[in-house]
Amino acid sequence: MGFTRRKFLSSSIGSIGLSSMIGSIVSSCVEEKKGKKKSVISSNDIILFQGDSITDAGREKELELSNNSNSFGNGYALLTASNLLYTHPDKNLKLFNRGISGNKVFELSNRWEKDCLELKPNILSILIGVNDYWHKKDGLYDGSVEVYENDYRKLIKRTIKAIPNIKIVICQPFILPDTSVVDDSFVEPFKEYQLSAKKIADEFNAFWVPFQEVFDEAVKHAPAEYWLYDGVHAAMPGAHLMALTWLKTLI
Amino acid sequence: MGFTRRKFLSSSIGSIGLSSMIGSIVSSCVEEKKGKKKSVISSNDIILFQGDSITDAGREKELELSNNSNSFGNGYALLTASNLLYTHPDKNLKLFNRGISGNKVFELSNRWEKDCLELKPNILSILIGVNDYWHKKDGLYDGSVEVYENDYRKLIKRTIKAIPNIKIVICQPFILPDTSVVDDSFVEPFKEYQLSAKKIADEFNAFWVPFQEVFDEAVKHAPAEYWLYDGVHAAMPGAHLMALTWLKTLI
Repeated sequence: MGFTRRKFLSSSIGSIGLSSMIGSIVSSCVEEKKGKKKSVISSNDIILFQGDSITDAGREKELELSNNSNSFGNGYALLTASNLLYTHPDKNLKLFNRGISGNKVFELSNRWEKDCLELKPNILSILIGVNDYWHKKDGLYDGSVEVYENDYRKLIKRTIKAIPNIKIVICQPFILPDTSVVDDSFVEPFKEYQLSAKKIADEFNAFWVPFQEVFDEAVKHAPAEYWLYDGVHAAMPGAHLMALTWLKTLI
Repeated sequence: MGFTRRKFLSSSIGSIGLSSMIGSIVSSCVEEKKGKKKSVISSNDIILFQGDSITDAGREKELELSNNSNSFGNGYALLTASNLLYTHPDKNLKLFNRGISGNKVFELSNRWEKDCLELKPNILSILIGVNDYWHKKDGLYDGSVEVYENDYRKLIKRTIKAIPNIKIVICQPFILPDTSVVDDSFVEPFKEYQLSAKKIADEFNAFWVPFQEVFDEAVKHAPAEYWLYDGVHAAMPGAHLMALTWLKTLI
């Protein structure tokens, strides 16, 4: 299946191109890692999606099964994982979603033993940060961008110590203004959080999924709410765009 | 965006190819309609997915919003609609899922006014039939393949009478044996239902989505449960394969 697989993958990547603009921004933002081959999916990989409500996407939390639609919710994690399982029927992949609505990075830390380390993932994808900023802005939380960055760094260090060969995927947190939740006052302070996430990705040579940059291109084609219905959470086409961007980063 | 759109679409179609076998069976099974151009999606289209639990896929049924992840559940309808919305941000599409778990064709008829005609769809996709057979086999229902075919024909006639220019998509109902629900005794009698569905598709010059034939190829690459977890309902990779097959049929 080698040739066909390659053909499929190159087709998948081609389909990133909602427009040549989005296609090229994805291509230019997705970094080529030195010494890190693309298409990192291996046989028997355990792949974990972690994060907040954007990852959670209404998943059931009693059974929390692998490779199960109900345990995956209806967001980008479902779309990404469904694509991976379809593409690799011969690889015995095991995929989990453990995103929880409302989480900030310290809340990931609090449940990390059970919801990450015990699962022993080979590939860990994290999307976290919007609540760290948003809850602070709304006076519900007294953290700061420094707390976010330091907590995030500690979390990754702890993870690598427990699972040395793990591949880490850091997803850029994102927002779109001119929406029911997000106005222009979010943009500049939130950039600090985005820069911290990028710094962590660089420090640990992690994969970096440039969601903000892709959504910034997407709004040239349809209003912000078309992609993120409230400026924070993905609508259906936004989730599809996220899945394609994630896949383009790793494959 | 014309050229890029074409490029995207051809990439999407390429990605049907889990393997050259599945790719070619999809291509050979998806019929070219005389005088009917492919890529049938037009601006302002209202697209309705109808059916049983496979379409329902745990959708919420209070608000039943268009273009909304929760109202779409987590099955092939979500994956297909997300792809369509991503691909056509400029077309103002409105997509609905109104599948209901357990439905047989007469139960679609009972709720057709509210759950189809009132929505005034331009494109109607129906996947129905497995319960018409399965519930009868289990002694829960006294229908027959003749009842299925006649009810289905009446439903389509009624729909075309109400919405003359509607484009109809008939999805082939499917099963996979060697699973927790389905054994070999299902296969031959269920073929009668599949033939009836195909007959209806031909009579009304509808699009025909050959799900059974695609799943028959898929099981050459992973066990039946990998695609349909109980032989009837789609697992994540099965839902992805269904979405690609549906898209290949219409685009």
